[in-house]
Amino acid sequence: MNRFEGREGPIRLGMVGGGQGAMIGSVHRIAARLDGHFSLVAGALSSTPEKALASAREVGLPEDRTYTDYVEMAKREARLKDGIEAVAIAAPNHMHYPVAREFLKRGIHVICDKPLAGTLQDAKKLAKAAESSEALFVLTHNYTGYPMVREARERVARGDLGEIRLVQVEYPQDWLGDVPAPDNKQAAWRTDPERSGPGGATGDIGTHAYNIARFVTGLELEALAADLQAFVPGRPIDDNAHVMLRFKGGARGMLWCSQVAAGCENALRLRVFGTKAGVEWRHDEPERLRVTPMGGPVSIVTRGSASSGEAAGRLTRIPAGHPEGFFEAFANIYAEAAAAIRAARTGAAPDAAVTYPTIADGVEGVAFVDACVRSSKRNAAWVSL
Amino acid sequence: MNRFEGREGPIRLGMVGGGQGAMIGSVHRIAARLDGHFSLVAGALSSTPEKALASAREVGLPEDRTYTDYVEMAKREARLKDGIEAVAIAAPNHMHYPVAREFLKRGIHVICDKPLAGTLQDAKKLAKAAESSEALFVLTHNYTGYPMVREARERVARGDLGEIRLVQVEYPQDWLGDVPAPDNKQAAWRTDPERSGPGGATGDIGTHAYNIARFVTGLELEALAADLQAFVPGRPIDDNAHVMLRFKGGARGMLWCSQVAAGCENALRLRVFGTKAGVEWRHDEPERLRVTPMGGPVSIVTRGSASSGEAAGRLTRIPAGHPEGFFEAFANIYAEAAAAIRAARTGAAPDAAVTYPTIADGVEGVAFVDACVRSSKRNAAWVSL
Amino acid sequence: MNRFEGREGPIRLGMVGGGQGAMIGSVHRIAARLDGHFSLVAGALSSTPEKALASAREVGLPEDRTYTDYVEMAKREARLKDGIEAVAIAAPNHMHYPVAREFLKRGIHVICDKPLAGTLQDAKKLAKAAESSEALFVLTHNYTGYPMVREARERVARGDLGEIRLVQVEYPQDWLGDVPAPDNKQAAWRTDPERSGPGGATGDIGTHAYNIARFVTGLELEALAADLQAFVPGRPIDDNAHVMLRFKGGARGMLWCSQVAAGCENALRLRVFGTKAGVEWRHDEPERLRVTPMGGPVSIVTRGSASSGEAAGRLTRIPAGHPEGFFEAFANIYAEAAAAIRAARTGAAPDAAVTYPTIADGVEGVAFVDACVRSSKRNAAWVSL
Amino acid sequence: MNRFEGREGPIRLGMVGGGQGAMIGSVHRIAARLDGHFSLVAGALSSTPEKALASAREVGLPEDRTYTDYVEMAKREARLKDGIEAVAIAAPNHMHYPVAREFLKRGIHVICDKPLAGTLQDAKKLAKAAESSEALFVLTHNYTGYPMVREARERVARGDLGEIRLVQVEYPQDWLGDVPAPDNKQAAWRTDPERSGPGGATGDIGTHAYNIARFVTGLELEALAADLQAFVPGRPIDDNAHVMLRFKGGARGMLWCSQVAAGCENALRLRVFGTKAGVEWRHDEPERLRVTPMGGPVSIVTRGSASSGEAAGRLTRIPAGHPEGFFEAFANIYAEAAAAIRAARTGAAPDAAVTYPTIADGVEGVAFVDACVRSSKRNAAWVSL
Repeated sequence: MNRFEGREGPIRLGMVGGGQGAMIGSVHRIAARLDGHFSLVAGALSSTPEKALASAREVGLPEDRTYTDYVEMAKREARLKDGIEAVAIAAPNHMHYPVAREFLKRGIHVICDKPLAGTLQDAKKLAKAAESSEALFVLTHNYTGYPMVREARERVARGDLGEIRLVQVEYPQDWLGDVPAPDNKQAAWRTDPERSGPGGATGDIGTHAYNIARFVTGLELEALAADLQAFVPGRPIDDNAHVMLRFKGGARGMLWCSQVAAGCENALRLRVFGTKAGVEWRHDEPERLRVTPMGGPVSIVTRGSASSGEAAGRLTRIPAGHPEGFFEAFANIYAEAAAAIRAARTGAAPDAAVTYPTIADGVEGVAFVDACVRSSKRNAAWVSL
Repeated sequence: MNRFEGREGPIRLGMVGGGQGAMIGSVHRIAARLDGHFSLVAGALSSTPEKALASAREVGLPEDRTYTDYVEMAKREARLKDGIEAVAIAAPNHMHYPVAREFLKRGIHVICDKPLAGTLQDAKKLAKAAESSEALFVLTHNYTGYPMVREARERVARGDLGEIRLVQVEYPQDWLGDVPAPDNKQAAWRTDPERSGPGGATGDIGTHAYNIARFVTGLELEALAADLQAFVPGRPIDDNAHVMLRFKGGARGMLWCSQVAAGCENALRLRVFGTKAGVEWRHDEPERLRVTPMGGPVSIVTRGSASSGEAAGRLTRIPAGHPEGFFEAFANIYAEAAAAIRAARTGAAPDAAVTYPTIADGVEGVAFVDACVRSSKRNAAWVSL
Repeated sequence: MNRFEGREGPIRLGMVGGGQGAMIGSVHRIAARLDGHFSLVAGALSSTPEKALASAREVGLPEDRTYTDYVEMAKREARLKDGIEAVAIAAPNHMHYPVAREFLKRGIHVICDKPLAGTLQDAKKLAKAAESSEALFVLTHNYTGYPMVREARERVARGDLGEIRLVQVEYPQDWLGDVPAPDNKQAAWRTDPERSGPGGATGDIGTHAYNIARFVTGLELEALAADLQAFVPGRPIDDNAHVMLRFKGGARGMLWCSQVAAGCENALRLRVFGTKAGVEWRHDEPERLRVTPMGGPVSIVTRGSASSGEAAGRLTRIPAGHPEGFFEAFANIYAEAAAAIRAARTGAAPDAAVTYPTIADGVEGVAFVDACVRSSKRNAAWVSL
Repeated sequence: MNRFEGREGPIRLGMVGGGQGAMIGSVHRIAARLDGHFSLVAGALSSTPEKALASAREVGLPEDRTYTDYVEMAKREARLKDGIEAVAIAAPNHMHYPVAREFLKRGIHVICDKPLAGTLQDAKKLAKAAESSEALFVLTHNYTGYPMVREARERVARGDLGEIRLVQVEYPQDWLGDVPAPDNKQAAWRTDPERSGPGGATGDIGTHAYNIARFVTGLELEALAADLQAFVPGRPIDDNAHVMLRFKGGARGMLWCSQVAAGCENALRLRVFGTKAGVEWRHDEPERLRVTPMGGPVSIVTRGSASSGEAAGRLTRIPAGHPEGFFEAFANIYAEAAAAIRAARTGAAPDAAVTYPTIADGVEGVAFVDACVRSSKRNAAWVSL
């Protein structure tokens, strides 16, 4: 019996976006379901009515909880006695703000995909909407859900690394290395500034890289210098970014994200080096944290083992050596959200250990993209967020 | 929208065993839930009435579907209009046979943990019970649910490796390397021949190693020579086994399983070598299959990528580079079971691609343990299954 | 019998620098000896007479070929009938120019450690001296001697990668992560701008990183933007550098070198990504080249195997699976030098395949350091070499 | 200045065998030369006179020290004032005994390739010859020359692992996976029982695997059960062996060697597990020793680093992160031999730390092959050495 199994009945969840052909919608649903904390009971899965209905049928939603308009959904669900308690937003970036606003203002908790918004303006408006709502706002920067990322964070916070000097983070992919096929919906909206915002690779994956670096180190950025590039002919948005980082307090770093790096699948990798030791975490070996003391030897701390600490242990379902992965990490964000939502039911504060990315992380992510674009336009001059 | 999301409503599932403190019960529940194919609606989670009730409450079972006796559960659920369609058996090995029998004879499908039974006699009786039932019998040899294990199997079947010469399989752990703490329930029943059967490491993990070797290669065993050992003082059952293998047709191999191999977590690893090429799969890098042609170069095929085939693709939820792991592999067995159960609802044959371990694999696994024990008693003489 | 064994008797070699306590002198001697191409017959191993004599005795030099002054050595050896044909210069950076000049003007071939000189001015003077001499000038950018680095180069040149888009190169170490012990001679001169030149990490290892990137890709640098830092208090010279790179033709890249990256030993790593494929080479796995096609799968080409080509094959002594390493790579530079020197004996051109770093690479390396320092002083503005 | 550079002038070395086309002759010469301890001055490199002469010319031997008959060489060199002090024997296995005898009886030290002899009878005769000679006998079980193998040994001896329970050793290759080309000399003699002795893979590489297991653990074998196989049609000698091991004191193990394991290059790998911890060493990552405590975490000790001990440090030429490899390990055996030979010059005992494989290891290796063959003929019955 692990801590993840629901004891008070699942939280009633709705979803906006994430209909047929949308990978991320399916991810949210699996993550919500995995630990039994949530039950999907309503949805406006597509802005195309026919597709919304077909999608709802496929995921087993009852007809009377199937919507074709998210505003109507927000209104009606807020009135229902057993209406949704939370909504997952899996729509394209530019829709995050208008959708979230409708639910937040009706007191329905929001679990929103990243980046927070297409523009910094929208992000700030959304932050205001969240502030003035009693509902919670959870951003699915899912990489922060990996237990060994939390382990890294705990070790930094505890001072194991000494004073941080260097932050090297990269996130290369190759799936946009060529002109995408015309029917590739994932590629279509991500390379369209109207829907994704001004950042391409920076918005889609650079935000993850930046977020994980911030999450693990706690360092604040002072300035960045970014060299953005669109390598694929005709692409109106960056597909590669080289960014130099200067953190407050003197640490420095580099961030590289790319969607054209041949042979890279989804190779997020963070290295942090301090005066005493370093840590390295790689997405393609997510169960391990390499701890690298000055002068060595490297040791490999694994999830679920005696050498990993409380922060990782909280998010662990099964002993070491039984690989947990992407869905479990995503489900960890949902589990943290569930803990917070359940506490909110009673007005209690959630357990102090509960940690998830919030609206502030979201604003910062959009500000990061904005700063990258501004710096790059000025020939990689230093800019602050 | 992936193929895993339920379109006709979930299958009603019951569970026997898997109450508080039982790791594997929680695994079954997550696996059943992950893709939305099953809904847990009834259970006899413990043979101790109080614990059965407390466990049921924790996993959210309604009181009127909570049982303290599996026979009563089988009888009553079989009569209910919305009674369970399938039962997951997560009780200790020696209970598999008596429990499964009750459900099978009432036409309720069985999804049973491995090994099939504590003794070969029980295994054979269970096989008879399964044969004479119309219900399906699915054995959760979960490692066969890993997409890249299926990829290996597909490549062998297609002839990519040529004629198989060598099968090297190992499954080392270290969690029983010392005398376990008295309150370690997992360790207690696994080292008690009354509950686990005559095999210790051989039964608990050797069966997995043997099963995966058989699953990938399709080879049948001709004879084995086993040297079993209990390294931890006072242990009445093997915690380490070295086994030499001779397959029909001339291939040879080795199997090593251990629960005392210091520093090994759950390190199942299979290598198969043929006249043209080899493949290697490791549980600690489950998303990769190393393909090793005679003379090289090694190539690394990943789940979800263009280089992996149909068998792996069927069991894939998300693109390459987003690690799937243990729960997804376990859920794949449940998904295959769901496909078969849904076909059975209508009397149709399931899709030809649907593949899961059956009662025959279960009998063979117990026969493997039996042969290991017999051989070892005869000083590692060759014996057949 | 491999191609490396000398058939005409070894080349007579002298050495300047590299006395007691100097790691790199010993490396040069092993590299020169390994394949039997050279015989060390004279030396001015230290500028301190006593140490020069003691050092010479230790390496077995006869007294009459032991010098305490490199000018005297150059003069006398040039007159001897069996005087040295080549001199290896293993003195600190600022001595490369004055020493090399003396030998070059007497027609004695020079094999010189990198960086070429402490200042760009000296580097250019040395280039002139080399141009006006008939003697050869070989720079021991030893990483270009690794067979799998040559394999990478061959694949790029052949077009396997398509058009190059990205060059990511890094060279982290941690041995200067703290204030060094006072008796650490290696650290002392490397952190003293008087002896090492204006670049610290940039000069010592950044030049290697830059050189290998240039060697493999053949791309020319258009501009760089560098953020240099001295993390260790009181250090007058950089111990970490982040550099953004823009190559002629549109490729971009990043170079990171560090001497304070906790837990990194000598972790040079080059990744090159083109429109079709990428390659990755790491110094801690020098026998492998990872080839990463767009969309995968990764394949691992090994030295000495059927999948590696002619460029690597030329520099291979033993079949695949028998690891060659640092000394063999260094010896490969010496072997190439020997081939060129032997051709020069007869006035013939050396085999077209013979490839080694030259004075031009040396000037470029110093220009790279100079550009990094200039850029960093201007707050990481873009500068050209 | 490292400890490896000769201070008293090199030891005069002769060679028997190792002519044109013989890989191992070249390896011996490089190893002898690398550290400057030896100077090759005489040789009978082939039993074919013409080839002996041509080979000698290629490696730069003077004509008056070139022999076509090893008996003549032994006789004449023993009489010369500056005759050889040691002879390296790189001839096929069946020649080791007759050749070594001639030099031993004339007081010339022998450095002999392994296995010691083609038959156990010859091995024992050679042992007697060595005993009755004042000359030293060094066997080039070169894998014992790797610093991290010595590190493993030191840790076992110090008790870091506790009491040893398990020894898993394997040595797979694939170079004999098909019928070799007719002109493949390496393959020809290794698959001919007349020249290689009764063991194929067992003799060529199984002896290495067995030796390294013995060297690291110090355990003595009680019995083995071996299943030998010739997979390639028509091969008169094993190309694959599965061996179960029982050591005195209760440890158990497995040894697998193969020359038909597709995609394996030279993949010697040793794992030792004790009551407290384990160690793992792999030939394809020779600079690292994985130390695996019970319960983890794994740590990676590297050659030349602060975490490696004295035994490894003695055999280290260059700091951590600069890969040493096969030739350096081989040269370490030569360096140890040199230390012993220099001590013998003065009658002194060599430094207590000097360690190299001796005639006893050689006899044991041949006895291992003999036992494997005997066991396999008796259907893998247990036999003792």
